[in-house]
Amino acid sequence: MEAPYILFLGDAPDISWAKTASGLAEWRAKDCAGQYRLDGCGVDLGLPDLGFEEAVAKGIKTMVIGIANDGGFIADKWVSHIIAALKAGLNVAAGLHERLADNKEIAETAKTSGVTLYDLRRPNIKFSPGTGVKRSGKRLLTVGTDCAVGKKYTALSIEKEMTARGVNATFCPTGQTGIMITGRGIAIDSVVADFISGAAEWLSPAASDDHWHVIEGQGALLHPAYAGVTLGLVHGSQPDAIVVCHEAGRKELVGYEGDYACPSLSDALSVHVNAARLTNPAARGVGISLNTSLLDENSARDALKRAEDELGLPSCDPLRFGAGAIVDYLEKYM
Amino acid sequence: MEAPYILFLGDAPDISWAKTASGLAEWRAKDCAGQYRLDGCGVDLGLPDLGFEEAVAKGIKTMVIGIANDGGFIADKWVSHIIAALKAGLNVAAGLHERLADNKEIAETAKTSGVTLYDLRRPNIKFSPGTGVKRSGKRLLTVGTDCAVGKKYTALSIEKEMTARGVNATFCPTGQTGIMITGRGIAIDSVVADFISGAAEWLSPAASDDHWHVIEGQGALLHPAYAGVTLGLVHGSQPDAIVVCHEAGRKELVGYEGDYACPSLSDALSVHVNAARLTNPAARGVGISLNTSLLDENSARDALKRAEDELGLPSCDPLRFGAGAIVDYLEKYM
Repeated sequence: MEAPYILFLGDAPDISWAKTASGLAEWRAKDCAGQYRLDGCGVDLGLPDLGFEEAVAKGIKTMVIGIANDGGFIADKWVSHIIAALKAGLNVAAGLHERLADNKEIAETAKTSGVTLYDLRRPNIKFSPGTGVKRSGKRLLTVGTDCAVGKKYTALSIEKEMTARGVNATFCPTGQTGIMITGRGIAIDSVVADFISGAAEWLSPAASDDHWHVIEGQGALLHPAYAGVTLGLVHGSQPDAIVVCHEAGRKELVGYEGDYACPSLSDALSVHVNAARLTNPAARGVGISLNTSLLDENSARDALKRAEDELGLPSCDPLRFGAGAIVDYLEKYM
Repeated sequence: MEAPYILFLGDAPDISWAKTASGLAEWRAKDCAGQYRLDGCGVDLGLPDLGFEEAVAKGIKTMVIGIANDGGFIADKWVSHIIAALKAGLNVAAGLHERLADNKEIAETAKTSGVTLYDLRRPNIKFSPGTGVKRSGKRLLTVGTDCAVGKKYTALSIEKEMTARGVNATFCPTGQTGIMITGRGIAIDSVVADFISGAAEWLSPAASDDHWHVIEGQGALLHPAYAGVTLGLVHGSQPDAIVVCHEAGRKELVGYEGDYACPSLSDALSVHVNAARLTNPAARGVGISLNTSLLDENSARDALKRAEDELGLPSCDPLRFGAGAIVDYLEKYM
């Protein structure tokens, strides 16, 4: 995926629909040189708004579809813009369920324009069902009260902090953004259902006893749409350590308001730990990660303290205050 | 899928690998006119062993791949026999993950022989993620302590008993055998992971208040390989009533011996009921289905009695004694 990038934000109403774009802007900031927004877009990543000719003139190589919708398809209103980007000479990358290459108009335009389509979500690996056999090495999995609560950022931050301390650690991405950031991993929700746990086993293979695989969680076990993905990932990951993630202040599942409340931190942690113990009886909670971006600093510190009191485990907001408290705990107890 | 059929039993070591064949032989007996076995096959369905020319001479139209392996692929040693069947003029049907049509040699032979390949597992429907919105009508889901414990037979038997009593009921198949038996349904384990619960919602749509969807379970929540599929199916099915299925005498998960024990009936039932309550807070256990085929009649009746005592719910072996006890309970209490 040739850098630098212009991030396509489309008509995303808010940042929760633009996780790929905001993830790239955060973790691959030096490669993100512009953004492209449609009328009604409610997201601004603070990058220059560029037209496609302008982007090419500035040396930008690839437009990254930085947003998603329910179902992961290419929305009709995006297509003419994708076509225009291709005609201007930009490659286009996406991690949607629907492949760019499967859209005839997009595929033909890419061909005649001599540019490349990157479809990053669809795995080219042939997986098997999970074996359930215990692997060597240590594993940490981030889990959530809901989708889009910071599971990826938490895992990235923990890996970064471990690496800074000289701990042998590898981040394992399970979604399109993580794959775009690191260039490896597997979009676990795009695997055939029978192979979720097998794909998760593949993602964090046997390793040396002092090595940590830090695995990005997906979905949530108490979510009416995505819990199947989560459970297969939990079982296949065989986590020793589980960090529960939440957005401070969120009361209901995003997109399911009125029908589904967010579980408490302790309910969310215990349902994931109990599930994990099927394949790793030693699985336990090791920390809480709160996204406190909606709170001022004092309120954020209060929320973190309340979370620590509720669960008796260290808490952090990894983007705001770092993931040190959780890594301290791991170094002391695991 | 043109009848009558010859059932390909391949080298299946025992009946647990030949669920599709035994399901067809039981529920579509009049269409099953022969079996075809390789050296080492440990299964005998009591059908005439026929060669392919002989089968064609008897008017058989289609060879059904009646076995599966872990991973659902076309085993190398099956290929020459499939080719021979096609050359003899038989259509070939399968419900494996790997499509017959994707095997070049098989596809080409079918074409030159002028016969048809049926790949029944791969859905042609575009699903969405689950909505979690409660639907009208009543739903019963069969769940298990393990795979291959009788979830499909139990659901078929309950639907049969309901229909015989004039209850408005529809069997919803979720696997290849059920699809082959009824000609509809969805192989839920072949859906993209993100859409498991959405596919399950599609399978048992809103219905009249007195209608029962009787849904075939898949996998098991306490299974290291397939629990993701099961959880998505549980959430999307929104069952009011759950029947837990078990094979009497089975102590360990098949294929996972030494690593994974079968859970108790009460643990298996409670983990599924608790999960189901996310999308249907009224979900509850309504019965136990025991496959007692390994026991003599007295031992079978003892095992059923012990199961009733353990859970305080009616039990049955639907194939041996019928599913009446569970339908009695549903008519009285639901």
